[in-house]
Amino acid sequence: MYSGYMKKIGAFEYWTRLWKNRKRLYFDYASVTPIDPRVQSYMNRMSRLYPANPSSLYKDGVQAKKALEGAREEIAKVLEVHSDEIIFTSGGTEANNLAILGTVYALWSKVERTFSANHSDEVSVTLKPHIVVSAIEHPSILETIKVLEQHGVEVTIVPVEPDGIVSAKKIKSVLRAQTVLVTVMYANNEIGTVQPISEIAKALRSYKKSLGRDNLALPYLHTDACQAVCFLSLRVPSLGVDLMTLDSSKFYGPRSAGVLYVRRGIQLAEQFHGGDQEKGKRAGTEDVAKCAGFARALSITSEEREVEVKRIADLRDDLLNWMLDQIPDLGVNGSLSQRLPNNINVCIPGRDAEFMVLQLDAKGAAVSSVTSCHAQREDSYSQVISSLGDSFGDEDKSQKEYYKQCSRSSLRITLGRFTTKRQVEKFKSILAKVFCK
Amino acid sequence: MYSGYMKKIGAFEYWTRLWKNRKRLYFDYASVTPIDPRVQSYMNRMSRLYPANPSSLYKDGVQAKKALEGAREEIAKVLEVHSDEIIFTSGGTEANNLAILGTVYALWSKVERTFSANHSDEVSVTLKPHIVVSAIEHPSILETIKVLEQHGVEVTIVPVEPDGIVSAKKIKSVLRAQTVLVTVMYANNEIGTVQPISEIAKALRSYKKSLGRDNLALPYLHTDACQAVCFLSLRVPSLGVDLMTLDSSKFYGPRSAGVLYVRRGIQLAEQFHGGDQEKGKRAGTEDVAKCAGFARALSITSEEREVEVKRIADLRDDLLNWMLDQIPDLGVNGSLSQRLPNNINVCIPGRDAEFMVLQLDAKGAAVSSVTSCHAQREDSYSQVISSLGDSFGDEDKSQKEYYKQCSRSSLRITLGRFTTKRQVEKFKSILAKVFCK
Repeated sequence: MYSGYMKKIGAFEYWTRLWKNRKRLYFDYASVTPIDPRVQSYMNRMSRLYPANPSSLYKDGVQAKKALEGAREEIAKVLEVHSDEIIFTSGGTEANNLAILGTVYALWSKVERTFSANHSDEVSVTLKPHIVVSAIEHPSILETIKVLEQHGVEVTIVPVEPDGIVSAKKIKSVLRAQTVLVTVMYANNEIGTVQPISEIAKALRSYKKSLGRDNLALPYLHTDACQAVCFLSLRVPSLGVDLMTLDSSKFYGPRSAGVLYVRRGIQLAEQFHGGDQEKGKRAGTEDVAKCAGFARALSITSEEREVEVKRIADLRDDLLNWMLDQIPDLGVNGSLSQRLPNNINVCIPGRDAEFMVLQLDAKGAAVSSVTSCHAQREDSYSQVISSLGDSFGDEDKSQKEYYKQCSRSSLRITLGRFTTKRQVEKFKSILAKVFCK
Repeated sequence: MYSGYMKKIGAFEYWTRLWKNRKRLYFDYASVTPIDPRVQSYMNRMSRLYPANPSSLYKDGVQAKKALEGAREEIAKVLEVHSDEIIFTSGGTEANNLAILGTVYALWSKVERTFSANHSDEVSVTLKPHIVVSAIEHPSILETIKVLEQHGVEVTIVPVEPDGIVSAKKIKSVLRAQTVLVTVMYANNEIGTVQPISEIAKALRSYKKSLGRDNLALPYLHTDACQAVCFLSLRVPSLGVDLMTLDSSKFYGPRSAGVLYVRRGIQLAEQFHGGDQEKGKRAGTEDVAKCAGFARALSITSEEREVEVKRIADLRDDLLNWMLDQIPDLGVNGSLSQRLPNNINVCIPGRDAEFMVLQLDAKGAAVSSVTSCHAQREDSYSQVISSLGDSFGDEDKSQKEYYKQCSRSSLRITLGRFTTKRQVEKFKSILAKVFCK
């Protein structure tokens, strides 16, 4: 069934097979994906072909620049945007930081005095700028916003529904005249719930209309799409976002490679200083091979998306059904219908998440509990799962208590490109040994 | 003569030979170096061996973490520092930004009120913090400091002597009680002049002593050592610096890979938010293979330094002597004795720098005029060379005028690992065609 893919990769079959036949079972693709051998070989070739600095004036530099711009266009094509709207960064964390700090600091003084609400009238606003964010964002969003809050920016954290979905209505209800940015992730990194981004975009548009503002005016909509790339459409025109974060270490591309899509016309304050690269929005010599690898990984992933979504969803459903059947008291965190097809996040009450991870590890399977960015903390628990309980009022204390417990008793199991039926079967037998005595 | 090196690289001989025999002549190693095939193959292997997220708790994550820490130790060994003093960044620009913004923002409120001058007494200082910087720093230093200046930090730019060297005495003379940071590059990126870093460190120490401050107290000394790695000793204890920037795209390692050495005890405000990586000083999933590649490139460069310095200095001297002999009115910018062995920077009065670059390019040779980070500007001129003239008083207007002209009429020619005697001879014949009609 997967032989077309195998054939295509040709000389790298060996490496791919190695991944598929590795003794260790990798079920943590949401944490990081191994680089696709096709992407690696492409990057090696690009770094041999285009060794010069893309800012140099001579032929070698011009060629490197061309290769860089080619990568930018390849990415823009998948996103259906203009290539000058793509900014290369050192990863999703930097892109998320740039999206938030960049837009707010570019508007900051404007917002305190006046800001252009519809690109023609200067509307005087004396209040502080305001940001709206969902409760289940990645730490690189939530912690960056906390920093802005300390500097006086007002923040509204919108809680999620019990199924882990953010309501577009709730977002709309908290918008204010001085709201500059709404940021909601496309798909959650822990429970895999898919957020209604285009609905939120629609709500923002109708809000702007009600204020007599232009569609391109404030507030901007940013989405962190890092987890979405392998499974959801990235077409910006239909999503309706103004800014979008991508990270190729989540879709079999190079590590430490990110992209921020920034719609034309949005001012962005640079966060690095000292170079004219990326149109002055991100200083530092560009890594041509890495950018090309990002683009190639994105193209491959987009081309294979449809087939992969089906293949992986089948494997996931099979595994999840088995788990629901065999493991006592197992509860699924978050919506099952509005969910990435590779994600399983389950609560096994009474068990310690970290201990379960280590138990499965000892038997040869790699899964995780909380986001990797906080996994090394002494007192680590899942803020995402804990906030699922927050949507219940005080009258439903048992649910609140359940999710509070679950934030320390849940496992994230994520499948990916190199997951096979055989691996799933082997994983089941490991789960059985740990949980079904 | 270079066959030992050839033998060592084994299977990659082909690629190396390719570089040495390429039709195009690359004489712009200061802009960026091609990756060493030994480093590339090592990185590919590391990315195959350690695909997991180094923050993950399971075995694969622990192994990746180990590989990451191994790279950190390898770098620390070359620098003769502790491995926990090494912070990985996305390149020299980010490391320079982090060094300056990180230290100043960590001290900012402290400085406005009080700051600990010798780690025991809290000295009350009501003045603004103060930074001392040389006039010929890289844009990623000068422009970052400009940003701080806009926020109220006081800045003293110390001019260079006519030979392009910063005087330690002059640095000492501008220090104040509220000086928090002195930043002077180890070797200049355009004219290759080597700065007396350990003398400056000594001057700082004696200044601190005169105030009764501890050696570890403010002001800190930062050096941007990006250009120095291939030719100068990086031993931190003898340099006496508190912070040091490195970038492996200048020593045949991976692109977009930087390191900031930060002495234990120095507080650094993080510039990215949202992850506990790099001890909370730099959020974002680490790229294990890239960090390992950085370390390997640094080790190779350090091991081969002595032989390479001699080999390249011989080639450079031969080329420079030929140029002085053959090209009329040619003047060398900056000291010849205190200079990187691979650097030639010459002024040919009356000629346009950009046009000369394109003339040589058309004949097959790649050289540059100004720093690549500003090369694409409409009105590009060399700030470094222009500031050589600033050291002359108003009584010597002709010198001032000469360097002002030279800032638009100078060429930077830099040699490197793959430069051969044959290439130099070929380059001479191209120079002859362009300049010796």
